[in-house]
Amino acid sequence: MTRTIGVALLGLGNVGGGVVKLLDENAAAIAARLGARIEIRAMVVRDPDKVKRVVDVDRALLTTDLESAIRRDDVDIVCELIGGTTLAKQAVLAAIAASKHVVTANKALLAEHGDEVFAAAERANVDIYYEAAVCGGVPIIRVLREGLASDRVEALTGIVNGTSNYILTTMADTGRPFADILREAQELGYAEADPTLDIGGGDAAHKLAILVGLCFGHIEFSSISTDGIDVVEPIDLAYAHKFGYVIKPLVIARDHGDAPGAGIEARVHPALIPKNWLLADVAGAKNAVYVQSYALGPSMYYGAGAGMLPTAMSVVSDMIEIGRNIFARAAGAVRAARPPLAPRRVVPLADIRTRYYLRFGVHDRPGVLGQLMTILGAHQISIAQVIQDGTHDRDEPVWVVVLTHVAREGDLRAALAAIDKLPIVRGAARVIRIAGS
Amino acid sequence: MTRTIGVALLGLGNVGGGVVKLLDENAAAIAARLGARIEIRAMVVRDPDKVKRVVDVDRALLTTDLESAIRRDDVDIVCELIGGTTLAKQAVLAAIAASKHVVTANKALLAEHGDEVFAAAERANVDIYYEAAVCGGVPIIRVLREGLASDRVEALTGIVNGTSNYILTTMADTGRPFADILREAQELGYAEADPTLDIGGGDAAHKLAILVGLCFGHIEFSSISTDGIDVVEPIDLAYAHKFGYVIKPLVIARDHGDAPGAGIEARVHPALIPKNWLLADVAGAKNAVYVQSYALGPSMYYGAGAGMLPTAMSVVSDMIEIGRNIFARAAGAVRAARPPLAPRRVVPLADIRTRYYLRFGVHDRPGVLGQLMTILGAHQISIAQVIQDGTHDRDEPVWVVVLTHVAREGDLRAALAAIDKLPIVRGAARVIRIAGS
Repeated sequence: MTRTIGVALLGLGNVGGGVVKLLDENAAAIAARLGARIEIRAMVVRDPDKVKRVVDVDRALLTTDLESAIRRDDVDIVCELIGGTTLAKQAVLAAIAASKHVVTANKALLAEHGDEVFAAAERANVDIYYEAAVCGGVPIIRVLREGLASDRVEALTGIVNGTSNYILTTMADTGRPFADILREAQELGYAEADPTLDIGGGDAAHKLAILVGLCFGHIEFSSISTDGIDVVEPIDLAYAHKFGYVIKPLVIARDHGDAPGAGIEARVHPALIPKNWLLADVAGAKNAVYVQSYALGPSMYYGAGAGMLPTAMSVVSDMIEIGRNIFARAAGAVRAARPPLAPRRVVPLADIRTRYYLRFGVHDRPGVLGQLMTILGAHQISIAQVIQDGTHDRDEPVWVVVLTHVAREGDLRAALAAIDKLPIVRGAARVIRIAGS
Repeated sequence: MTRTIGVALLGLGNVGGGVVKLLDENAAAIAARLGARIEIRAMVVRDPDKVKRVVDVDRALLTTDLESAIRRDDVDIVCELIGGTTLAKQAVLAAIAASKHVVTANKALLAEHGDEVFAAAERANVDIYYEAAVCGGVPIIRVLREGLASDRVEALTGIVNGTSNYILTTMADTGRPFADILREAQELGYAEADPTLDIGGGDAAHKLAILVGLCFGHIEFSSISTDGIDVVEPIDLAYAHKFGYVIKPLVIARDHGDAPGAGIEARVHPALIPKNWLLADVAGAKNAVYVQSYALGPSMYYGAGAGMLPTAMSVVSDMIEIGRNIFARAAGAVRAARPPLAPRRVVPLADIRTRYYLRFGVHDRPGVLGQLMTILGAHQISIAQVIQDGTHDRDEPVWVVVLTHVAREGDLRAALAAIDKLPIVRGAARVIRIAGS
């Protein structure tokens, strides 16, 4: 066998190391499936003299010269594993300009600049594959793009950030507070030193933007409503449990059509989900996407959303796919990175309709519950269940926990603003949305 | 847009009707994704005059002339939905001989004659796609062939027969006996008039053979050990529950390598699985495949394993993929139906090692348990847990239920043969394997 596919690897961190390892260990199987070998021609790194790397590499391939690596004649695919949206964007656009196919794991780049990048790839007639950008090793992009190509996705609900899921799962299992578990996760290497993107929901929002672009059409990344998991306290998990729910870090998207005022609902937040949902059993750092589509109905895709080998697996599977396209002279011709969907409007958060878990800290005085209920009712918030915990000490605040029926977010926020002003209420209410209706 | 892909549809039953419906309803979206329209040029049916059909069709397209329909110049793809292995095999081979690409939902054909059919397609340089043959709408073939192309599957465990899963789920929920639920399922149209293939495990074995061929290499279909779900009684579900398990209709495959005596473990049978497994929550008629692979680790794919629209969705998605290949002149070139894997030996059932649930009917005499345990021990069957139910009437038999540690099937069968001869034992022991070790 003499055919080869040449790759320039940009970045040699955890995932890049996994790519090198997988291409090496599975070389024979990959060659048999592709009918060609995939060979790395250059690895662009910041410091070629760095001694400690995730894997042993041929040091002769290391270079700092990104531009030259991209433009090498023997490179067919540029694999961008730099991350971020500055240098990575320049590199991807340079690769496309040099007529190289692109594999990227960069969710921020595609969520924030996907339109520009995909349009450039289309004009240059090159492939851009990005399976690793969403849910690591779970082949959700391929499933949505090809497996369900004849279907019409109506909604999706996903757990797409492993760190957040790990923290909430551990909190539910142990009852320990958020900050403790986060610190431990950081020590174990499960969470970044700066966990803002993970626990704040930004990482999940990037992935949701990509999924929405694939299923419904491009939306503005900044229009995705994003709440982090740090609003969840152990007591909320305990109450959720009492009501038959667990709390999971979700992304939710739904197509409400193109009528005036309608559009795409797209939000990222922790949510109560019924214990008997399949997503309720997606524990630890695992990811899953639950898809509702017209023909197939519900389907779910589950697996490792991060990690060296799972993510590298998606990257190398993309390389194999591009290799097949190259040999079939297919590259770019009919393999658009996204289906040609029109851009979509995002439904304003105030207009979404869902159920809510509300936890109020109140002074235990007669008539408190009546005041709360009256205000909620005046704002069209209908109540499904209420728990009011008693206390022995009338000076201690007590919790009133309310599960609502489906309500409009704007109405709920107005009601909460009114409730916050009541002298009987201590601090702002804790609000967690409930998935499903 | 003038480009079209022509299809000859062989068979217009439930799935065929779904294909017509989906091609019609999603025509615009499909055309946008493929860059071409998919058009049905002929539908081959037994009786063109039949009045009642699943969908309204253009009666001018109906024909009984299979050969001519396949050979039409304006047909690119032959879609075989006839079923069975006689006429369907002739039709698929005729299509391949006429250089037509093939989409088939026929698990029996591919499980029993896959080697011949795939080899013919390879020689003729045509595509053969078969997503609908395994798990209906769940895109498990595409996931294994493309999503995990760079990975190495080590084992898989699946619920791939919806009828069996529906019956066991309903039995567990209601405690009603097998025959009742089956009759009801037949009346509701969930089960075939002749349910042998479903409840006997033959249908699941067909699907397992296809999955094994894709992941590990071709195995002889007849070498798959296949037990039906009819061994399971409500009392077994109750005992399983007591031990923390549910009983599911499983297919199990594992690659033990190519050392002498090793090979592929491939079996179909109901099995106890721990309640906290994701597969334990796959209820009703739903399907799921849990895959263990080297790089990705565990992953799971869940959805509707049967039904008109889910199955038709897989068929039409395959047509779209072939359409892309056609336009890219890629058809056949690098898209082998299966990776080029060597045929594999199946591990004899006697050599498999797993855990067992055993239920013995015994006369309640002192020393009974001792005799059972002694014989099991003498055959290297180590016991994990035992329940002996008491009775008020010493003439009534009682149940002794045993969960074993991992044991060799051959040893277990030898022990059971010896136990069957004991005068204290009433009837043959009930044996259900336990998944996981």
